[in-house]
Amino acid sequence: MPQSPIRAIAFDAFGTLFDVFSVTALAERLFPGQGDAVSRLWRLKQIEYSFLRTLSKRYEPFDAVTESALHFALSALGVSAGQAQIDLLMAQYDRLTPFPENLAVLQALKADGVPMAILSNGTPRMLEVCTRHAGMSGVFDHLLSVDTVGQYKTTEAAYQLAPDAFGVPAREILFVSSNGWDAAGAGWFGFTTFWINRSAQPPEALGVAPAATGTQLTDVLDFVRRHRQH
Amino acid sequence: MPQSPIRAIAFDAFGTLFDVFSVTALAERLFPGQGDAVSRLWRLKQIEYSFLRTLSKRYEPFDAVTESALHFALSALGVSAGQAQIDLLMAQYDRLTPFPENLAVLQALKADGVPMAILSNGTPRMLEVCTRHAGMSGVFDHLLSVDTVGQYKTTEAAYQLAPDAFGVPAREILFVSSNGWDAAGAGWFGFTTFWINRSAQPPEALGVAPAATGTQLTDVLDFVRRHRQH
Repeated sequence: MPQSPIRAIAFDAFGTLFDVFSVTALAERLFPGQGDAVSRLWRLKQIEYSFLRTLSKRYEPFDAVTESALHFALSALGVSAGQAQIDLLMAQYDRLTPFPENLAVLQALKADGVPMAILSNGTPRMLEVCTRHAGMSGVFDHLLSVDTVGQYKTTEAAYQLAPDAFGVPAREILFVSSNGWDAAGAGWFGFTTFWINRSAQPPEALGVAPAATGTQLTDVLDFVRRHRQH
Repeated sequence: MPQSPIRAIAFDAFGTLFDVFSVTALAERLFPGQGDAVSRLWRLKQIEYSFLRTLSKRYEPFDAVTESALHFALSALGVSAGQAQIDLLMAQYDRLTPFPENLAVLQALKADGVPMAILSNGTPRMLEVCTRHAGMSGVFDHLLSVDTVGQYKTTEAAYQLAPDAFGVPAREILFVSSNGWDAAGAGWFGFTTFWINRSAQPPEALGVAPAATGTQLTDVLDFVRRHRQH
């Protein structure tokens, strides 16, 4: 199938625009020697819990899921933490560092007139706070949260938010994610997908390949500029 | 709510009756120094892929999912493997070692007259081969595979196989699993759950607790004998 023209872009937020491992420094300060392990297991359980709650139809908002995952990660690693430390880490999650190239790329796409959205597991509040803190307010036409459908990615209901918001068919929307599982789910759904492979991972063995792969958001800019002119 | 009497037992297979890490020795022989990492990442991706394929309604049988997960794990760890080695590891998955206490416990429960089933993500073929190899043929009244509903745990359709097969309400079925996520999903579904916490993990932070916890299958025998007399 030839490449569809790209008429809009939907970005994943956590891991794609915002560095979820930017909590590592604080975690390391709070729990010396364990910061890296805490932030990795925290992220792993956060995703697992989002899957499980969707499979079992037990949706809870992403900030609650994120805090539960943190509790599990700390216990599993034998880290003794009080509520004050939990609160600090959760507050840090609202101030995740954007990857360095992101703001300039988003502004360039905006200048090109490309409609853009975030489509994220995060709650509306988390998305609003994170984009504001990253200086990205006003860049996006839509901040789409799965909270409005009560199902996490990779369900159809979650991804359908973007075609509905843009009024554009899925294959003409470029879905951009650094998360292999999210790019796969988005591809199954029908988006044209761009996988930002930031950590040199192999492709997921799920029988669905991204339309394009890069290592940072600047690669998305090149791809979109090539595929808007068709 | 008082404990319901236990009228039947449904066992998870992989990780609960059969040691999924019993492939480690072969993996270590094939890929010296990497056996442990390969078997751990293999298992992690196998579970993740089962979740994703269910969330996205892209069911594939568990042996195919398991082989895909192995391919990913080997690539991610930079292990160069040929199809012959993949085939060896997949064949080993049909001969997973049962945990040492399991057969005697199952035979004791059988002698007590408790109806028993396996309820597993595995295909009917995998369950048949694994139980036969473990000397468990004839112990179970039902080998229930989610393959018949085309959805992996933790969906309602998957767990519903047990009440349907036994003709017994979920709360009077003891669901036994070593996998925290599976015990949580089973508890949400409505089973009375027994979590065999074989590796000293903290409880999952999912707001649902098992009815009982133990460290090996003998603990299940004690629990069932106490709760059949009510």
